[in-house]
Amino acid sequence: MWKPDRTSKTALYQQIAEYIEQRITLGEMPPGSMLPSERKLAEQLGVNRSTVVQAYENLRASGIIDSTTGSGTRVTKSRMGMAQLQTPNWNRYVEGGTLLPSLPFLRKIREGVQSGEPFINFANGELAPELSPNEWIRNVLQNQPFHEPLGYGDPQGYVPLRNALASFLLEHRAIKATDDSILVTSGSQQSLYLITQCLLSPGDAVAIENPSYNYSLPMFQSAGIRLFGLTVDKDGVDPEEIRTLFKLHRIRMVFLNPNYQNPTGTVLSTQRRADILACCEQLGIPIVEDDPFSLTSMDEEVPPPIKSLDRSGTVLYIGSLSKVAASGLRIGWMVAPHTVLQRLVDARQQMDFGLSIFPQWIAAHLLDSSALTPHLYRLREALRSRRNLMANALNRMLRDKISFELPAGGLNLWCKINEDVDDYTLLRNGFKRGVLFVPGSVYGSEAGFVRLSYARPAVEDIEIGISKFSEALHETITR
Amino acid sequence: MWKPDRTSKTALYQQIAEYIEQRITLGEMPPGSMLPSERKLAEQLGVNRSTVVQAYENLRASGIIDSTTGSGTRVTKSRMGMAQLQTPNWNRYVEGGTLLPSLPFLRKIREGVQSGEPFINFANGELAPELSPNEWIRNVLQNQPFHEPLGYGDPQGYVPLRNALASFLLEHRAIKATDDSILVTSGSQQSLYLITQCLLSPGDAVAIENPSYNYSLPMFQSAGIRLFGLTVDKDGVDPEEIRTLFKLHRIRMVFLNPNYQNPTGTVLSTQRRADILACCEQLGIPIVEDDPFSLTSMDEEVPPPIKSLDRSGTVLYIGSLSKVAASGLRIGWMVAPHTVLQRLVDARQQMDFGLSIFPQWIAAHLLDSSALTPHLYRLREALRSRRNLMANALNRMLRDKISFELPAGGLNLWCKINEDVDDYTLLRNGFKRGVLFVPGSVYGSEAGFVRLSYARPAVEDIEIGISKFSEALHETITR
Repeated sequence: MWKPDRTSKTALYQQIAEYIEQRITLGEMPPGSMLPSERKLAEQLGVNRSTVVQAYENLRASGIIDSTTGSGTRVTKSRMGMAQLQTPNWNRYVEGGTLLPSLPFLRKIREGVQSGEPFINFANGELAPELSPNEWIRNVLQNQPFHEPLGYGDPQGYVPLRNALASFLLEHRAIKATDDSILVTSGSQQSLYLITQCLLSPGDAVAIENPSYNYSLPMFQSAGIRLFGLTVDKDGVDPEEIRTLFKLHRIRMVFLNPNYQNPTGTVLSTQRRADILACCEQLGIPIVEDDPFSLTSMDEEVPPPIKSLDRSGTVLYIGSLSKVAASGLRIGWMVAPHTVLQRLVDARQQMDFGLSIFPQWIAAHLLDSSALTPHLYRLREALRSRRNLMANALNRMLRDKISFELPAGGLNLWCKINEDVDDYTLLRNGFKRGVLFVPGSVYGSEAGFVRLSYARPAVEDIEIGISKFSEALHETITR
Repeated sequence: MWKPDRTSKTALYQQIAEYIEQRITLGEMPPGSMLPSERKLAEQLGVNRSTVVQAYENLRASGIIDSTTGSGTRVTKSRMGMAQLQTPNWNRYVEGGTLLPSLPFLRKIREGVQSGEPFINFANGELAPELSPNEWIRNVLQNQPFHEPLGYGDPQGYVPLRNALASFLLEHRAIKATDDSILVTSGSQQSLYLITQCLLSPGDAVAIENPSYNYSLPMFQSAGIRLFGLTVDKDGVDPEEIRTLFKLHRIRMVFLNPNYQNPTGTVLSTQRRADILACCEQLGIPIVEDDPFSLTSMDEEVPPPIKSLDRSGTVLYIGSLSKVAASGLRIGWMVAPHTVLQRLVDARQQMDFGLSIFPQWIAAHLLDSSALTPHLYRLREALRSRRNLMANALNRMLRDKISFELPAGGLNLWCKINEDVDDYTLLRNGFKRGVLFVPGSVYGSEAGFVRLSYARPAVEDIEIGISKFSEALHETITR
């Protein structure tokens, strides 16, 4: 996003006014469209509010924008030469559509991340730059000559990558699969999107862990799906609850995240894996097993995935490289029965015509490389030390105020706040102090929880961030 | 897709039986699921039908599959150890969902392309491998050290690529845009998908050229959109028809492909570009200007795009690198007002969490490179000679049977058949002879047209392919 140039001789307010005028002239902000509030634009551009006030005043004086008390600032409708135009009412268009917008909470957090301000980011469950295999990828690019065809690729995914995945899944997750039953996706998000869009119909009932990352995904609501929560105890989800939900609501699919569940960090026990599979096989309902974190074990290994027990084609297994290598690769996968994959492949052609060859080619090299195991070893070490740093800081600064279980893997620490707090106030108080995190209610949990990710911020910022969080929490409690 | 190993000592039928048994055991073909017909599997695997018959007999003898006359072959439901299981009825799941399957015609063609059989492919509107800048891309990968962050990137697209696009659009298309108003997409298909999913609602009426590539996209029907056709004459679409459709059906959007329109090859005249913009501005309805082919001009340049005239934010402009560099890059773009982009960016996060950094990084290097202009020059030369080859062959072999206008750009030749033929029979007769093309009815045109792409097959196959097409056409007519 554009920012004013602080080294230029032109005054900041002048640069801002010129930039907005240019965008209006180009039609990027059509007549009648809304300008951001002065406060918000100041935040986005990293300038004082008074600078934006002055820029808007200038534009108002030229008749380019006008403000009405209470309804904000807009681009003037009746400018020279376009007095008679009924330009599209874009606001009405963007309110339409079947894909619902993201939750306001998440948009607020995303704005913070994108503002370029130096927030300490406990909100994004992603790896810090130094945890990705940068050097290794650079080597692949420079030393492996690229000789792949550059046309539309195989719609199910680059064949060498599917073969590499079949070996990888067998070695690391005890899953037997042929390349025919593997779909390469643009990360787990695309796998979930395809499942909800192609296999479920409006009105369908679905069971998911409560709390769950999936609650934060408007795609379920967009697809008109009714969500029913499954309690997560220390061993994960109880199969009996699935049975009950089936009787009550005829649920058509179960979404599970059995390893270091997002956000709670729970691991589904070995016994329950088998029981849940047997239960769903009996009921004839599929399980979506979302498994992004299993290779991030910091203490001991997790049990084999439900998919490794599946001989009836009941489980759709989802994984990705985002949490163990690089989210910027945008490489994920799904293992599923043939009928399902055929349908999803066909639907994806309509959405984006399949994946770029380049990240697939790189991912195939990474998975085949002997450097994978040492990388995973280093990653786990780094995550363990980050997690411990965060846990120690929390224990030191907030011992009475919060409680948590130490997660044995994954990127997130799920924290219960022992007093009544308002989620949004806590988020805002953190924002003010420069620390970002996700309030638990985003995941559908009752109020009074937060998810703190230890993987993203700089190591040296973890303690500082927790102390900012501590201040924000204290302020929220005493209000 | 798996193929039997012809060098192995194990008999082909035995290999096939073992492979199917393995997939059944893995749950990839769950109990009750349908096996392909013997004929179809033989086609897919490139073996004789009798080989598949024998493999199926083997599996039947072991009780692994069973066949009922008239309802095909299925995986046995009551195998040892899973007699009581109600595995998911995947057929019912895949019939649900909001995204509709592709047209049967297109699936038939795709199956042909993927079968690995040596079809001469006039069906896919994409570049032959030798037309892509392979060497140039290999150089970028080997000589430009990759130092970009590997986390989730900017959801609107990699900033250096957006800057490169702003310069590229100004230089080559006379479009002024800031990086803030450019969205990087996974090709034009994703731009179109986002527009239909986010800006239109079920029941909305939309005007598109008739015939149009967009007719072949089930995403319009998936989104519940009513399509109304605009006649394409030698100068493109008449603005008066847009006005009429607006009065009759309150159309909410106009989709246009003004340069070498797909499939007809028509160029919208300069005057009509201005008139259509003025008309849509007055009616307050947006124009989607899809512009994949403008840089493939073989004879003279096309007029500047409608977007270059747009000062009211009426036009959503779509482009991509697929038809001028490499479809396997999966890099496209959209230029649109800010309000629109914000909405689309947010929605895309739900679909796939944005694009991989790698193709974006490569595309930024390509667009900034001085090698772009010479590449485009060579591409146009190559397309011109391919087009001429095809046109000459058609004139020589089918002078009385067909008529066409020579397209001045793009990848397609739109051919009218001067006698009554059944589309599907023609397609099948071509299939038999090893030539693929797209029947006009896929694009919503009346019967008796075909689209022949000259960009994809090997140059030396163009004449041979046309002679096969000619045979297929003669057989279809005389039946």
